Amino acid sequence: MKTLEAQVITSEELLKHWQGHRALTRNVIEAFPEKDFFEFSIGGMRPFAKLADELLAIAAPALKSIVNRDVQPYTEGTEKLIFKAQYLEKWDEATEEINKYWEKLSIEDFNQNFNLFGQYEFPIIQNILYFIDNEVHHRGQGYVYLRALNIEPPFFWER
Amino acid sequence: MKTLEAQVITSEELLKHWQGHRALTRNVIEAFPEKDFFEFSIGGMRPFAKLADELLAIAAPALKSIVNRDVQPYTEGTEKLIFKAQYLEKWDEATEEINKYWEKLSIEDFNQNFNLFGQYEFPIIQNILYFIDNEVHHRGQGYVYLRALNIEPPFFWER
Repeated sequence: MKTLEAQVITSEELLKHWQGHRALTRNVIEAFPEKDFFEFSIGGMRPFAKLADELLAIAAPALKSIVNRDVQPYTEGTEKLIFKAQYLEKWDEATEEINKYWEKLSIEDFNQNFNLFGQYEFPIIQNILYFIDNEVHHRGQGYVYLRALNIEPPFFWER
Repeated sequence: MKTLEAQVITSEELLKHWQGHRALTRNVIEAFPEKDFFEFSIGGMRPFAKLADELLAIAAPALKSIVNRDVQPYTEGTEKLIFKAQYLEKWDEATEEINKYWEKLSIEDFNQNFNLFGQYEFPIIQNILYFIDNEVHHRGQGYVYLRALNIEPPFFWER
């Protein structure tokens, strides 16, 4: 049940905020040359493809598991993707899934606890903010990779 | 006036979330060797001291300007800081200022528009989320600098 009381942020706005970030991350994936997406790294960190594996392993599967209150272990890279185009396809599938599952979240859900991946027992709002922050964090790393490759990254404020 | 209706996130939780990120960024500043904080960079990007200048120029001044509905231009590095310890001191002052001004935000304020720095006319919640995202983004860049310097960054989830 929706309330008409004043909200710091509405559920719809938070979804839009998240999907805006995801659209930007998609542009960052696109900006990488094919080879560098899978191979380039700095200081022993993961290449951007591995970071994208993590982001894909979190977003849609985590939200599904939250909505269904079905604790599932974290599993990354169950399907081995070898082309950037496959990542973009998975990214777009996840976008649709997130939109679909988000509709099932009620405003009362956000403050309920959920043990995400059987490891992170927090209110659902904190889990969701973590997904976003984690994506912004890793994407920030991607920006440095692109700059080091002499590629202009997308504007941060373009979502 | 506070409401008892269900919230996606409360004002208090959002402040805690932001200050948690700011505490982590403070740890990242601390992790840099003095010289590298001011000089190290990758791919022509700004050294972390310059990124910290930006973060300091946004957080407390922006919130103050929002709370007072007093449009002020963006001004960075009005005071030239030359030691990391000065940054940490300014950081802590900003932490207190943010806490102080945050108390003056009512829940109804978040959806009102404000023309931040005379440039960004958005609902206040969007401006505040932008401060947080921008900090997470730049801090993610700082993580790459630290890794490239062979320094273990603080854990991302430690706030």
